[in-house]
Amino acid sequence: MTNRILWINPIGSDDFDQPIKEFLETGKSADTEINVVSLTRGPLHLEYHYYEALVLTDTLHLVKRYEKEGYDGAVIGCFYDPGLREAREITDKLVVTAPAEASMHIAATLGHKFSIIVGRKKWIPKMKENVVNYGFKDRFASFKSVNLGVYEFQKDPSETTRRLQAAAREAVEKDLAEVIILGCTAQFGFFRELQKDIGVPVIDPILAALKYAELLIQLKKRFNWGHSKIYGFEAPPRDEIRKWKLEEQYRTKGIWT
Amino acid sequence: MTNRILWINPIGSDDFDQPIKEFLETGKSADTEINVVSLTRGPLHLEYHYYEALVLTDTLHLVKRYEKEGYDGAVIGCFYDPGLREAREITDKLVVTAPAEASMHIAATLGHKFSIIVGRKKWIPKMKENVVNYGFKDRFASFKSVNLGVYEFQKDPSETTRRLQAAAREAVEKDLAEVIILGCTAQFGFFRELQKDIGVPVIDPILAALKYAELLIQLKKRFNWGHSKIYGFEAPPRDEIRKWKLEEQYRTKGIWT
Amino acid sequence: MTNRILWINPIGSDDFDQPIKEFLETGKSADTEINVVSLTRGPLHLEYHYYEALVLTDTLHLVKRYEKEGYDGAVIGCFYDPGLREAREITDKLVVTAPAEASMHIAATLGHKFSIIVGRKKWIPKMKENVVNYGFKDRFASFKSVNLGVYEFQKDPSETTRRLQAAAREAVEKDLAEVIILGCTAQFGFFRELQKDIGVPVIDPILAALKYAELLIQLKKRFNWGHSKIYGFEAPPRDEIRKWKLEEQYRTKGIWT
Amino acid sequence: MTNRILWINPIGSDDFDQPIKEFLETGKSADTEINVVSLTRGPLHLEYHYYEALVLTDTLHLVKRYEKEGYDGAVIGCFYDPGLREAREITDKLVVTAPAEASMHIAATLGHKFSIIVGRKKWIPKMKENVVNYGFKDRFASFKSVNLGVYEFQKDPSETTRRLQAAAREAVEKDLAEVIILGCTAQFGFFRELQKDIGVPVIDPILAALKYAELLIQLKKRFNWGHSKIYGFEAPPRDEIRKWKLEEQYRTKGIWT
Amino acid sequence: MTNRILWINPIGSDDFDQPIKEFLETGKSADTEINVVSLTRGPLHLEYHYYEALVLTDTLHLVKRYEKEGYDGAVIGCFYDPGLREAREITDKLVVTAPAEASMHIAATLGHKFSIIVGRKKWIPKMKENVVNYGFKDRFASFKSVNLGVYEFQKDPSETTRRLQAAAREAVEKDLAEVIILGCTAQFGFFRELQKDIGVPVIDPILAALKYAELLIQLKKRFNWGHSKIYGFEAPPRDEIRKWKLEEQYRTKGIWT
Amino acid sequence: MTNRILWINPIGSDDFDQPIKEFLETGKSADTEINVVSLTRGPLHLEYHYYEALVLTDTLHLVKRYEKEGYDGAVIGCFYDPGLREAREITDKLVVTAPAEASMHIAATLGHKFSIIVGRKKWIPKMKENVVNYGFKDRFASFKSVNLGVYEFQKDPSETTRRLQAAAREAVEKDLAEVIILGCTAQFGFFRELQKDIGVPVIDPILAALKYAELLIQLKKRFNWGHSKIYGFEAPPRDEIRKWKLEEQYRTKGIWT
Repeated sequence: MTNRILWINPIGSDDFDQPIKEFLETGKSADTEINVVSLTRGPLHLEYHYYEALVLTDTLHLVKRYEKEGYDGAVIGCFYDPGLREAREITDKLVVTAPAEASMHIAATLGHKFSIIVGRKKWIPKMKENVVNYGFKDRFASFKSVNLGVYEFQKDPSETTRRLQAAAREAVEKDLAEVIILGCTAQFGFFRELQKDIGVPVIDPILAALKYAELLIQLKKRFNWGHSKIYGFEAPPRDEIRKWKLEEQYRTKGIWT
Repeated sequence: MTNRILWINPIGSDDFDQPIKEFLETGKSADTEINVVSLTRGPLHLEYHYYEALVLTDTLHLVKRYEKEGYDGAVIGCFYDPGLREAREITDKLVVTAPAEASMHIAATLGHKFSIIVGRKKWIPKMKENVVNYGFKDRFASFKSVNLGVYEFQKDPSETTRRLQAAAREAVEKDLAEVIILGCTAQFGFFRELQKDIGVPVIDPILAALKYAELLIQLKKRFNWGHSKIYGFEAPPRDEIRKWKLEEQYRTKGIWT
Repeated sequence: MTNRILWINPIGSDDFDQPIKEFLETGKSADTEINVVSLTRGPLHLEYHYYEALVLTDTLHLVKRYEKEGYDGAVIGCFYDPGLREAREITDKLVVTAPAEASMHIAATLGHKFSIIVGRKKWIPKMKENVVNYGFKDRFASFKSVNLGVYEFQKDPSETTRRLQAAAREAVEKDLAEVIILGCTAQFGFFRELQKDIGVPVIDPILAALKYAELLIQLKKRFNWGHSKIYGFEAPPRDEIRKWKLEEQYRTKGIWT
Repeated sequence: MTNRILWINPIGSDDFDQPIKEFLETGKSADTEINVVSLTRGPLHLEYHYYEALVLTDTLHLVKRYEKEGYDGAVIGCFYDPGLREAREITDKLVVTAPAEASMHIAATLGHKFSIIVGRKKWIPKMKENVVNYGFKDRFASFKSVNLGVYEFQKDPSETTRRLQAAAREAVEKDLAEVIILGCTAQFGFFRELQKDIGVPVIDPILAALKYAELLIQLKKRFNWGHSKIYGFEAPPRDEIRKWKLEEQYRTKGIWT
Repeated sequence: MTNRILWINPIGSDDFDQPIKEFLETGKSADTEINVVSLTRGPLHLEYHYYEALVLTDTLHLVKRYEKEGYDGAVIGCFYDPGLREAREITDKLVVTAPAEASMHIAATLGHKFSIIVGRKKWIPKMKENVVNYGFKDRFASFKSVNLGVYEFQKDPSETTRRLQAAAREAVEKDLAEVIILGCTAQFGFFRELQKDIGVPVIDPILAALKYAELLIQLKKRFNWGHSKIYGFEAPPRDEIRKWKLEEQYRTKGIWT
Repeated sequence: MTNRILWINPIGSDDFDQPIKEFLETGKSADTEINVVSLTRGPLHLEYHYYEALVLTDTLHLVKRYEKEGYDGAVIGCFYDPGLREAREITDKLVVTAPAEASMHIAATLGHKFSIIVGRKKWIPKMKENVVNYGFKDRFASFKSVNLGVYEFQKDPSETTRRLQAAAREAVEKDLAEVIILGCTAQFGFFRELQKDIGVPVIDPILAALKYAELLIQLKKRFNWGHSKIYGFEAPPRDEIRKWKLEEQYRTKGIWT
């Protein structure tokens, strides 16, 4: 029984698709099959909330399309977790998760308090709202910014390592974080060395999301524990969607019907 | 000195434009000029978060377009406050508000605790997150659902009145709400009678947003107190937008350039 | 239709009346008329809570007296917001606000987190309770003390500016404040230069209270949204006041009758 | 070594002085001496916050006067705890407590959650702020109102008992309160029967305040643990008080000098 | 690569060992091997905290012993999660989880709010502390008690079903729970029918703990993400244990050495 | 009427018994009689939670045994307050308190915010949970670690004093603590000099627990306000204990029967 997971890089470029797929392969379970996709249009990173807005519907429609194709799970691959609520609303059979949510659940299990290392302070207000909305306000130690944009993490790996170490060390020593979360999917690859150096678990958000997706798929398949479809995640009625011709209007033929 | 306010009904129908414009005219200041617009495509209500996602970019582009035309303020006319964060991020000269935020600030000033009357329980989880994110968790008494969809409020006004009264009364007596907020812009028109009947302020979210927008415009014009452009509302850089051809990709020629 | 606002400097000196009136005139709406009054007895500042206690009843009686004269709104001009609760309890037609409440509502609309610059650390515990009671605990970044008493702010303006700048900068950079509030009405006049220097909105509490009062007056006049008179702000019954001869006992002839 | 405690009934009537003194005598320690006083003017109860304001300075001046006479402790005998903050600010040698604070500390030690039975819903918003400010938000189960004014509790004791029982039982069974607090000093005398009937501790606020005062006096005398005089409770400087002639202005000759 | 999980029924009876093992077998992954053990002494249920105290050290020593034998994970099978903190402190290679923690993490992922159905109200205060300490206070809807002791759940399954249904339905309809958690491991077997009946996910705490343990084992084995060994879970030093002869004193020869 | 208090040093050594008894004698009331006991086995300090677990049942059985002998109160003498919940569950006539709980209640009465000086950062996560569970999260300023183990406090008193001073001063100046709590019973003896030096109350946890125990005993004897025996502290039924032969199994003959 193979479990098929869709990983979406919600940006208008497939540059990250191959490296992230290779990274995911190192962490997946034997019975997991991963498909990494990106968008046909859109900004090249999501540091600004406007960019998140631009990619939102295309991302959701990808999720819906692959659910129809029988995929078991989807991960929206950005640490803002854009569209997580909406994706859970529109799906029924497939389960959805995202890096921030998955990382925080795992971190809260491994230690009393966690810190999140972000690229830029810009990201903090929205990510803090996610911390609060996911319920982890009191398990949260601090944000640490390393003052690097999304595309700068992989540019000079030794400089990135140096900054991540300094930030992580301060989080542990001053803010009493017992676990570190890397707060951007573009930070992939750095966790192993960092955690050896710092001596506490350093959560890579890509791997965290992958493993959490695998867990959720199992829960769904074995016990039928999927996203609750009452209240917040209750799906929009298909007859409204049909009557209002939303598929035509948003060029998403066949997604709902 | 006229202040120009854009009211957006973020749905793919102009059915509400005229009645809401007329309603707004009854509440506006003498020096306010209001333009009510809606979208050229989209669902006819936003009860589902997918629908919110569908209208998000068109709404944001409207805000940006009217900012360019010299408007002073914009209101996103739905009680979910969709796109409020993003609209504040992409604008600079124009100020933005929305019904839920405006209503809660006013309610918190008029009484110790407020309740929000919603149409359906479906709406509550996201609205509760807004209550928390706006900072009013401890001033919040309760949600009350009257079990009516957006289009049902104006269908049978006497039945709507009856349900609103029952919900408001219970909020006041059991949950100790001192102020009632009508939690849907489609509930417009009911507040006057209701507040006479119940004896506590009943906040109409359309009028609340209008007056809050007028306040914010004044603060901006007189004291240059606009949305802070550091961190959370820092705008995306125009050269990225240009380089990535986002205007072309999303057919919004001329908005950013 | 003129709106008449009473500004109370709740101290036993009229030294501030003229400068604050002039300052208010720079910010008021065309149809607002402002009367600045102070007390006939009392301490010359309110840094200590005992001083607040001393001026409380005289302040309340002023509010009540001017309500009787047909004033539309009153502002209690001290950042502790002394007597705000009681003033809302005893009034019915007139609306009341105060600098801290008004500043925080505005700041929370303009940015994700705000910091408050106080004169002395002494002020912080009570002001923190106000932050919490107004509901803004989670939108609050920090207090910053500049170690200046109320009468020292205007003594050496360049030194005051220097200290305010240092405090504001630290609030923005370290505590991630997106908006700064000047936490004392005696800090008036400094916000413009400071906000130009720091690059984020700097809320002057006097102007904030003025504009918030104007908003509340409009809400009251147009929609009858005044302070809720149930529960917390329910007014004391006049027959008790008469029977107990409270007017005679507290030399406030004619206020209630 | 006798400990002298001042009990203030902060109302303009000595009607309660004798019965409360007798009640206090039943609970005091052997080495405690109690003086019950009331005010020479003022309202006859404090259900309204305006009434609290009226009695505030007279109450504070009583505290200050008896501190000068060598009293060891003072209790401000109303469940709103009016003036507690200010009394702690102006005193140095004498310790001050009040019924709500004392009752909540004791209740939080005896059980996981407590409910407070109030006379009227009017009282709740301010008392809720006290619950929060004292730090007990998460140990608090509920308020229960028995719809009785201050003077009605002792009028028909069997009716009062009936209502208290119903309220307490509901608090225990529905809200899972493990301890009940009687939320008005005028409810004295009812706790014993009620606690026998309900089977959980029922805290009488008068006795709670008395015993807490005795504790605080011991802590002060033995270990010099009094109210911290830094920041929030830092006392106003005597030279300001003298220079501003506050004693003359408020007819309190000799209190500070 | 087989993953070996120890399931501890922390009571002095092996009566539940076989049925729980069979139940676990229905939910485990192919590469998981489960060993269910119980204690050689102790009470037969843990409804009282004294009983939890009695079994604590024997439970911890079991965990430690099986870690030495090379087990990969351990589950402490009681919804109070007794000894979870201590077990994570004393272990290094093996990961530990427990039913309440695992159920809440899963529930918070599947819906906005969850309710927990307990047997008796007695259980609530401690379980509420766990809800808060795990960080889920704001995702928590309510406790519902069905008034059944641990041994009564399996006695009359149709009566149990009836009560669970009534409690779950009320949680969903009144408290707006989107997910239900069965708050006792002795409720195993009821979730499937209940969730079909109620229409929302019903989390069985035994299966939740099993799957969470499998997740944690994978995280540990693949990425070395185990319990953080700094601060809260820092292990006691072996030389102290040896010097103080703790193994001899507590008859646990060979556990630490 | 003598009140007999049992002080338990919950470690396997009587080394501290004499010095702590002497210290307690300096603070007790005239009618208090104190018995200091320790355990016949166990670790020599409780810095690790495993050590707490080891001593838990022996501590509880001591409490129960002395209750049977007619003692009025018991104090579990470690700042983790180990077994406080369980001790209150199993007792009925005797009242129980512990250093952290007692210190925090007193500190919250004496100032707005308090800091706790701990020996090592290791202690903080659990102590923070206690701060939260006791309800003092919002009255809590900070933990300060002096990097000293339990046995190091009394080794070089001048070095200890130096570190305590530095930590306390930083807590007051930076974190705005108005009261300092010494967060370890092994810090006894240092409070007097420290509080003279720092100028704010410094709470010794041993004396705090002693005085709080004396208060609780009085409340119990005079008003029958003991630990609520409903819900959280409901005692285990004796017939279960007898039927399961728990006394034999845990060698505590005669404690329950």
